[in-house]
Amino acid sequence: MFRVGNGIDFHKLIHEPFRPLMLAGVEVPSEYALLGHSDADVLLHAVADAILGALSLGDIGQHYPDNDASIKNISSSIIVRKCLSLAKEKGWSLVNVDCTYVGDLPKINPIRAQLISSLAAILYLPEDCVSIKATTSEGMGALGRSEGVMVMATALLEKSKN
Amino acid sequence: MFRVGNGIDFHKLIHEPFRPLMLAGVEVPSEYALLGHSDADVLLHAVADAILGALSLGDIGQHYPDNDASIKNISSSIIVRKCLSLAKEKGWSLVNVDCTYVGDLPKINPIRAQLISSLAAILYLPEDCVSIKATTSEGMGALGRSEGVMVMATALLEKSKN
Amino acid sequence: MFRVGNGIDFHKLIHEPFRPLMLAGVEVPSEYALLGHSDADVLLHAVADAILGALSLGDIGQHYPDNDASIKNISSSIIVRKCLSLAKEKGWSLVNVDCTYVGDLPKINPIRAQLISSLAAILYLPEDCVSIKATTSEGMGALGRSEGVMVMATALLEKSKN
Repeated sequence: MFRVGNGIDFHKLIHEPFRPLMLAGVEVPSEYALLGHSDADVLLHAVADAILGALSLGDIGQHYPDNDASIKNISSSIIVRKCLSLAKEKGWSLVNVDCTYVGDLPKINPIRAQLISSLAAILYLPEDCVSIKATTSEGMGALGRSEGVMVMATALLEKSKN
Repeated sequence: MFRVGNGIDFHKLIHEPFRPLMLAGVEVPSEYALLGHSDADVLLHAVADAILGALSLGDIGQHYPDNDASIKNISSSIIVRKCLSLAKEKGWSLVNVDCTYVGDLPKINPIRAQLISSLAAILYLPEDCVSIKATTSEGMGALGRSEGVMVMATALLEKSKN
Repeated sequence: MFRVGNGIDFHKLIHEPFRPLMLAGVEVPSEYALLGHSDADVLLHAVADAILGALSLGDIGQHYPDNDASIKNISSSIIVRKCLSLAKEKGWSLVNVDCTYVGDLPKINPIRAQLISSLAAILYLPEDCVSIKATTSEGMGALGRSEGVMVMATALLEKSKN
């Protein structure tokens, strides 16, 4: 048995050299940062939503409301691990995750290997089941003006045999 | 045998207390409404397109052209049911559907259970095979200015055994 | 064994009667053209990324950097065929591809059959495993102002039996 899920997440980008920019659990060197209540890891948020969505387990905003002071600046890897646990409790495991990052800053290509390695570790998956692609909106719209970035994730889950 | 499909739909939001705002077949109490030729149920339209797309059966605009006066204000649940019938005729059934709603208004969280229940009924699926997630563009772009909303749907279909 | 992938691609639209507008490998008669380093076939780029993404084989920008003079104006059907080869080398084959085109110009409906036929031929798939749907952003944002178009693709791949 299989299920598919999708996740979309947007975060605003600000010029803020002293706030870490987190992507796929990696602190990316940048003069910019992503704005958010948690650590604003836009990629992990899209992945979390894709896992939850495949199994009809709600969404990240329901499990981690952005007005909950107790989770301010929470590491999004904790959020993703929690989603995996919820899936496992129901007998499902993750087959693969594919992400498309849309944004001009930061550039993904130079750090892609590191991001994939981190994402695979967070998801307990081999690296060939984890993908991070990058594109831009070619200068169009808010993403084209570098106001922020978007990630779309797709996940495939399978009912565990045992 | 499996197939995956996706659907994207956008509708403009207007301040119009007397036009019903339809989402997943539910009339959502709101001072706003979605503009469209049919009932403008942006969520059902994305789901319909995901079903059609998985099986290469065209798209919703092809089956229900927005210049066809006979379908003005048609209930989108009829459209989705028609897409399911087309799938069934070819021997396919729906496994699961996952939707991401991007918009500020109306808020999905308070009415999510009702929307999922309605969507599951329209699709003849158990509720744990139907997902509606919500996010925003964090104030960016047209969706961030509440000019409208977008829904992206992903569907998995399986060739019926019998 | 299955894998799912997604692809998103944006290209700007310009009024340029003498540059061919390529979609799904078809030269579409239009006074407009899509801007890009390759032939700017936004649909084939999204499909290529969905294939690569499903198998964690990188992205189109990694395999075909847009600062590589040797691939200027390259036909995107060559890019897609290369992605299929990479998949085949790893023992995977494409099950189905579903695309959503978001844009006002050019209109897809009148040329859909031709585009699907071309895409199926490029992918070595029967036409009922290849889908191209069209929608608009209802006048919202950069896509609504016809500044460009976007395609989102979803792909399902299966490990070859032999």
